[in-house]
Amino acid sequence: MNLTGMMLIGERDVAGSGKEIRAIDPATGTALDPVYRDGSTTDIKQAVALAEAAFDSYRHTTPEQRATFLDTVAERILGLGDVLIERLMAETGLPRPRLEGERGRTVNQLRMFARVVRKGDWLGVRVDHAQPERSPMPRSDLRFQYIPVGPVVVFGASNFPLAFSVAGGDTASALAAGAPVIVKGHPAHPGGSELVGRAIREAVRECGLHEGVFSLVFGSTPEFGQALISDPGVKSVGFTGSRAGGLALMKAAAARPEPIPVFAEMSSINPVFLLPAALESGAERIADGFAASLVGSAGQLCTNPGLVIAVDSPALDRFIQRTTEALGQAPASTMLTPGIHAAYQRGVARFSEQAGVQVQARSQAASQDNGCQAVLFTTNADTFLAGHEVLGQEVFGAASMVIRCSDVAQFHALAKVLEGQLTATLHCTNEDDPQLIAGLLRLLELKAGRLLVNGFPTGVEVSDAMVHGGPFPATSDPRSTSVGTAAIHRFLRPVCYQDIPDAALPPALQRANPWNVGRSETQ
Amino acid sequence: MNLTGMMLIGERDVAGSGKEIRAIDPATGTALDPVYRDGSTTDIKQAVALAEAAFDSYRHTTPEQRATFLDTVAERILGLGDVLIERLMAETGLPRPRLEGERGRTVNQLRMFARVVRKGDWLGVRVDHAQPERSPMPRSDLRFQYIPVGPVVVFGASNFPLAFSVAGGDTASALAAGAPVIVKGHPAHPGGSELVGRAIREAVRECGLHEGVFSLVFGSTPEFGQALISDPGVKSVGFTGSRAGGLALMKAAAARPEPIPVFAEMSSINPVFLLPAALESGAERIADGFAASLVGSAGQLCTNPGLVIAVDSPALDRFIQRTTEALGQAPASTMLTPGIHAAYQRGVARFSEQAGVQVQARSQAASQDNGCQAVLFTTNADTFLAGHEVLGQEVFGAASMVIRCSDVAQFHALAKVLEGQLTATLHCTNEDDPQLIAGLLRLLELKAGRLLVNGFPTGVEVSDAMVHGGPFPATSDPRSTSVGTAAIHRFLRPVCYQDIPDAALPPALQRANPWNVGRSETQ
Repeated sequence: MNLTGMMLIGERDVAGSGKEIRAIDPATGTALDPVYRDGSTTDIKQAVALAEAAFDSYRHTTPEQRATFLDTVAERILGLGDVLIERLMAETGLPRPRLEGERGRTVNQLRMFARVVRKGDWLGVRVDHAQPERSPMPRSDLRFQYIPVGPVVVFGASNFPLAFSVAGGDTASALAAGAPVIVKGHPAHPGGSELVGRAIREAVRECGLHEGVFSLVFGSTPEFGQALISDPGVKSVGFTGSRAGGLALMKAAAARPEPIPVFAEMSSINPVFLLPAALESGAERIADGFAASLVGSAGQLCTNPGLVIAVDSPALDRFIQRTTEALGQAPASTMLTPGIHAAYQRGVARFSEQAGVQVQARSQAASQDNGCQAVLFTTNADTFLAGHEVLGQEVFGAASMVIRCSDVAQFHALAKVLEGQLTATLHCTNEDDPQLIAGLLRLLELKAGRLLVNGFPTGVEVSDAMVHGGPFPATSDPRSTSVGTAAIHRFLRPVCYQDIPDAALPPALQRANPWNVGRSETQ
Repeated sequence: MNLTGMMLIGERDVAGSGKEIRAIDPATGTALDPVYRDGSTTDIKQAVALAEAAFDSYRHTTPEQRATFLDTVAERILGLGDVLIERLMAETGLPRPRLEGERGRTVNQLRMFARVVRKGDWLGVRVDHAQPERSPMPRSDLRFQYIPVGPVVVFGASNFPLAFSVAGGDTASALAAGAPVIVKGHPAHPGGSELVGRAIREAVRECGLHEGVFSLVFGSTPEFGQALISDPGVKSVGFTGSRAGGLALMKAAAARPEPIPVFAEMSSINPVFLLPAALESGAERIADGFAASLVGSAGQLCTNPGLVIAVDSPALDRFIQRTTEALGQAPASTMLTPGIHAAYQRGVARFSEQAGVQVQARSQAASQDNGCQAVLFTTNADTFLAGHEVLGQEVFGAASMVIRCSDVAQFHALAKVLEGQLTATLHCTNEDDPQLIAGLLRLLELKAGRLLVNGFPTGVEVSDAMVHGGPFPATSDPRSTSVGTAAIHRFLRPVCYQDIPDAALPPALQRANPWNVGRSETQ
């Protein structure tokens, strides 16, 4: 398949007319063909109008039709073969195994949502049967189900060019909910975006769906994104990216005549608490796991462990020493874009300049362009508490900071000043104080969407019980998750049907329950 | 029980220090004792600090403890006896049967949420069991449940001084979720608010809960409400009131350093479509039901039928004639406040001045202060379509407008220009075109949270399958309901627990499932 540099607006290939978008191989600085260009406001209007036109038929597809479509998207992505992997290696600097693994996750996500759609629990059906004899007032027949909110705009992420991009988690969950999707491809990997976009378009055709079910547009300016989500036809937004980018979208969405929700996943430093007995007995083992979690994907993961909290002790010195050694053996990995690399360098410099913060260790220096030299900082609890408004901010990349505490009481003080997080982790053993463990978990569950014991936060399972979310600024809306089957609920709203004739009810609510979905009934 | 004019901040009675708040008997204009006063920013801070302090213990109450508390609140409200009804009759002008019915609904809501809490489905527990042998990577043990978001501010509504006020639906669902509540009592009925507030406080004491689980504050200015929801300790907001009021809160909540959700229920005109055969066969019967729905509670219901859409025909003339006669026999009901009455009069005048809009009928003129003389307007579809930005706005009170259409095709055009609604209703029979019925329902489910056939939207069942919500501006967030058991989800967020030792897990997630809640498990 040859790349064309086009946007995919329904069935049409559309050339952008604005600013040039050119992927750059971050390892070499080479600009890659073809040239893409920002779409115009007319392009936005057409993509949204098509999505609106597709909404009525798409949301009324049967579970089987919609699930088959999701499975077909997965097949078509696999059908792209190695072209996709090679293009994305060039566009992102990510190594082949990581991209192949991410492709597997992407395909599995689509298939998982196909199973969710077939099962039908997401419809949340409730039936209150009529009570015509009830006194003083009869009760009507009331039937409740969730329906999709309407067209969804998805912003492709830079750091997951497959799993959080054109056919990523947000797209899969929105399509599963019955919402047409307009993806704004990330300008760092337009080629991979076009390939995956074409795969989705083919699945749309093959399944006989309305062309407006999916469009792919490009835009490299904040104004483009804001114009896109300001179109009245757009009803919800999924975004994974920077805090500044997410905040700008939240602001634009709130300023619309009809405000709409934005599900932005933005910023997290994912604290890891090392309890004394665990540290004493496992300093080296934990250090090895931590170092691997820190440097994987050049630290460009939302759940990268950016903070380690432990009591100052010989065991902590051993942990730091071992981490220092592990980093010393780690080569610098190429970062996704020159812009991300520059922001990382600025972030590292900002921490380095803080009084009371030491650079403890670095990975190997980069020999390539845009290489991420991992950094381990150390400081103490008082310094962090005094400077948490700077030191508690995410530096996107393989940077982390160890906080030496004078005692475990400082763990609570530190947990309290942290902003909302995607994850929080404890390393502990049966020898650690159960009260301390329980108290920390009790505090941290108010701060994070996922709590872990004796693991590392990178590596997010895609399953029923996963939560990839958390209080602001980890996300814009802690009432949801962007990974796992519960993600479908972001794009649904409930409707109650009162005394509607059976034939006019949606299938899942009809007496015969033709889709055989689970229903909660009260007589 | 004597009224004191105090706010209830945890255990303390606190005198306001700001602007005077005085209930007025709207039927007579008499100012009622005692004097209440706006709280200060210090009062706000103290109420929120107490709620934050209460959150940890309150959210960890067992289902039985929390349910018992809700049941006790219900008992204590009933225990207030006739004092509550009489005070609210004087403060609101609402008649005794309406207030007694509303007290029953309020008590039933509390008991319903007690049952919801005991059952535990709201925890939404999911368990993905560990797969230690999975290749290439083992799967961790993942456990998912919902927890409360944190302290909730509830704005008491003017039009439901019990069911949507101090111990109303928002308070009941937030307390059921495990969230402490700070109520801003509506300044139109401070006495009834104090009485109910004291009942809740007694239940807090009796159940041995932290005093900060509930506070009642007063404030009569927009600035007070904005200051209240801007406190960093507040995590969610429930509001029922005007569009302007709701929009101001949405704006303030979005402007916080940590934006929070606002569940504002604001504005709806609740269209009623009369299909030709139904109108032909039932014009008089439908007119009687419509007129009763229109004038009940002086039209001061969120679901009041403010729009009737039908094809111009002799049958429609019969409907209008019968409604005119019914209104002619209806006395003017006292409105809740002089302010609401003045706004109603302005709204009626605004419609009356529109070219192409006729005043068709009025109820009897008011002999009391602040009496609502119901008004039925008529217009045609072209006039409405051209002027829907004015004519599609809610006039709060017993005003409604009949739109004469030239054919049923205009039904679709009208439905399309309507803003989001709480409800939409069809009257139809087996003789009406099934395609028309299906097409209208398909369009209207995108516009409203509840669809009805052959009923009237006033009279909202409090049950599992109810939705009292809908797209903007009916509410600020169509993904939820403020009536029925699903309302609890507004105040919850999911958390995932990964590889947490059993003893440190929340009870609902432990292996032994000591609360015996429903769980969805994958092996």
